[in-house]
Amino acid sequence: MLTSHKAPEYQKAGDITSPKGFAAAGLHAGLKYKRNDLGVIYSETPASSAAVYTLNHFQAAPLKVTKNSIEEEGKLQAIVVNSAFANACTGKQGDDDAFAMRKHMAQHLSIPEHYVAVASTGVIGEYLPLDKIKTGIDRLAPKPTLEAADDFNRAILTTDLIVKKTCWTMEIDQKEVTIAGAAKGSGMIHPNMATMLSFVTTDANISPQALHQALREVTDKTFNRITVDGETSTNDMVLVMANGHAENDELTQDHPEWETFVEGLRQTSEDLAKMIARDGEGATKLIEVQVDGAESEQEAGEVAKKIVGSDLVKTAVYGADANWGRIIQAIGHSNAKVDPDAVDIWIGPFQVLKESRPLPFSEEAATEYLKSEQVTIKVDLNVGHANAKAWGCDLTYDYIKINASYRT
Amino acid sequence: MLTSHKAPEYQKAGDITSPKGFAAAGLHAGLKYKRNDLGVIYSETPASSAAVYTLNHFQAAPLKVTKNSIEEEGKLQAIVVNSAFANACTGKQGDDDAFAMRKHMAQHLSIPEHYVAVASTGVIGEYLPLDKIKTGIDRLAPKPTLEAADDFNRAILTTDLIVKKTCWTMEIDQKEVTIAGAAKGSGMIHPNMATMLSFVTTDANISPQALHQALREVTDKTFNRITVDGETSTNDMVLVMANGHAENDELTQDHPEWETFVEGLRQTSEDLAKMIARDGEGATKLIEVQVDGAESEQEAGEVAKKIVGSDLVKTAVYGADANWGRIIQAIGHSNAKVDPDAVDIWIGPFQVLKESRPLPFSEEAATEYLKSEQVTIKVDLNVGHANAKAWGCDLTYDYIKINASYRT
Repeated sequence: MLTSHKAPEYQKAGDITSPKGFAAAGLHAGLKYKRNDLGVIYSETPASSAAVYTLNHFQAAPLKVTKNSIEEEGKLQAIVVNSAFANACTGKQGDDDAFAMRKHMAQHLSIPEHYVAVASTGVIGEYLPLDKIKTGIDRLAPKPTLEAADDFNRAILTTDLIVKKTCWTMEIDQKEVTIAGAAKGSGMIHPNMATMLSFVTTDANISPQALHQALREVTDKTFNRITVDGETSTNDMVLVMANGHAENDELTQDHPEWETFVEGLRQTSEDLAKMIARDGEGATKLIEVQVDGAESEQEAGEVAKKIVGSDLVKTAVYGADANWGRIIQAIGHSNAKVDPDAVDIWIGPFQVLKESRPLPFSEEAATEYLKSEQVTIKVDLNVGHANAKAWGCDLTYDYIKINASYRT
Repeated sequence: MLTSHKAPEYQKAGDITSPKGFAAAGLHAGLKYKRNDLGVIYSETPASSAAVYTLNHFQAAPLKVTKNSIEEEGKLQAIVVNSAFANACTGKQGDDDAFAMRKHMAQHLSIPEHYVAVASTGVIGEYLPLDKIKTGIDRLAPKPTLEAADDFNRAILTTDLIVKKTCWTMEIDQKEVTIAGAAKGSGMIHPNMATMLSFVTTDANISPQALHQALREVTDKTFNRITVDGETSTNDMVLVMANGHAENDELTQDHPEWETFVEGLRQTSEDLAKMIARDGEGATKLIEVQVDGAESEQEAGEVAKKIVGSDLVKTAVYGADANWGRIIQAIGHSNAKVDPDAVDIWIGPFQVLKESRPLPFSEEAATEYLKSEQVTIKVDLNVGHANAKAWGCDLTYDYIKINASYRT
């Protein structure tokens, strides 16, 4: 049984401090002009941890440090995160800075260095202002409150307009298990871990190996299925900490309620992924694409991402134009098996294409539908039985505005 | 020896009627509101012909007809083209209409049906207004003049702002050989034949097989190296007719001047490809990306296309922002072999990155450079010796404007 703590605006109820034994903090360390720019998530005891990282060739320094920490024994007790500076393309000094950041955080919390993960997001190619970060770390005092979680959530944002968080509870071994997450993202969101940072906390009792397996499975269906502009970043990762304070029996694939946990993690990840897509730079709408009738889930996912990543589809949705021709073009552009005479397409409740031929529909009603804040496009390829979803956002004047002058 | 007839604005001098034995016509048949929408290219004698087609799964009806014609004996005498209607996603009736269009053109010119190719561009999913097209065909009277070529060139445009044409001459077997081309394109231009139609005429004497081979080789380095918005279309093709009126010895790979011909065809194709990229929807600038030091030409081409296709790079160029971080991200996003510590990047004359570390450069001077009409980005991967170029355009407010309301 799965119960969502999530309020309709995702802004209330649970947060990363909701699972037992977690605390957080966030503050202004002087990296940004005014807003929070440094934060920490802290677990009272060492937590099983797993992460997935950007596939970009240029992985930033903090990712190396986090990998180094997790490889040691698969456990973490703290994640320190800064915004404003990505510490990417910073060479040897960047590596040294990221390790120094980890060391300082570990000393401040009196825990071993390898229990600390580091994450950074912001401008590439500039060195971290390490003194400001150290002074900021000294002031971080993690608390197990929703206010403290909010301080953290705001500290990780860059061009994001809204805080992204969610929280789910479930019963495992008759214990209440909570999974919560916080994320940042905005431009440059694409499959394979683009510019996003997602942090998930849970009090579930689970081994690092099983946690890693669950995370990989879930990431492929959630974070890797969103796109804002087809770009990937150097810094992104999804990191999960599970500290076992819920006192369920240790979760493995053989546990009778394994699927309950995986579904909770999937739901948490999907919530965050959709919030990231919805908050894409300049976006006014969330676009959800569902592809049915594909030969495999992988092909369904590929087609869904082609559609949701198409600039022409994205501008048509922005303009509330029920232009199914662009959806067809995007489908035809994929490598998936497609029968050119068998495709059905729905824009919201309106079927616009049947067996690849246009159906009459009310343009007016479709335009009205396309003005909603969430738009659903459904495609049936009619060549198999697999399905998948992907999420993205519309492409707007504001995307151009934000990105034509990001650094000025 | 290669001499360009091309004037700086591409608007003067040679055209598709410049090679000996070619004529053209274009007129308003009533498909568009006012502008030319129907045209023909005609060769006095059957010409060796070759074509490459879109890889989109949903190939439009006219492509089937053209394939059918060329397969018969590798020769064509006429290409009839309409704009405004793509005749794609039109099912069986669409096929019948395209064949009817071919038949009517053949009858009008008193040539066999299989000497006629058909091309269409415009809105998807609506049937051709065949009566108007037939009436228009009856009025087409091909002439070997530049004025007639211009009538044709304007008839194939959709959202294009400028006519695209070029012309080159070379000496083969001491005969003057001319190659000329006309093209349309605009949005949806991407590798693998996106929404573009390119027609090349030449009076070279060459077999259909050799012509096909030359075209494939050249297409991979030109038309398949441009991108406007990453989309591919259902209708695009590049079609070459070679009627032999230059009276050179038949060109094959063994001909001592084979490379001269291929280079002329490549130059003609590159001109058209760059004009298509430069005239991308809403574009204000042509972006040329050159990648050196790759492991293979294919990888160099992939990296170049990733950069020139990146929405973040495209908006940065629009905003005249020398943001090399976005170039790095695009490179890192490719599948090519990359050494994360070895990349050099130049924006115009300014080297901004050396061994993946930022170099000091004058932001002011770089911004001034980025305001030019043509922007060159050069990357040296320093992992091999292969290189390639790709072309695209900036992403602007006008792209959104055009595409958020294409059909209204």
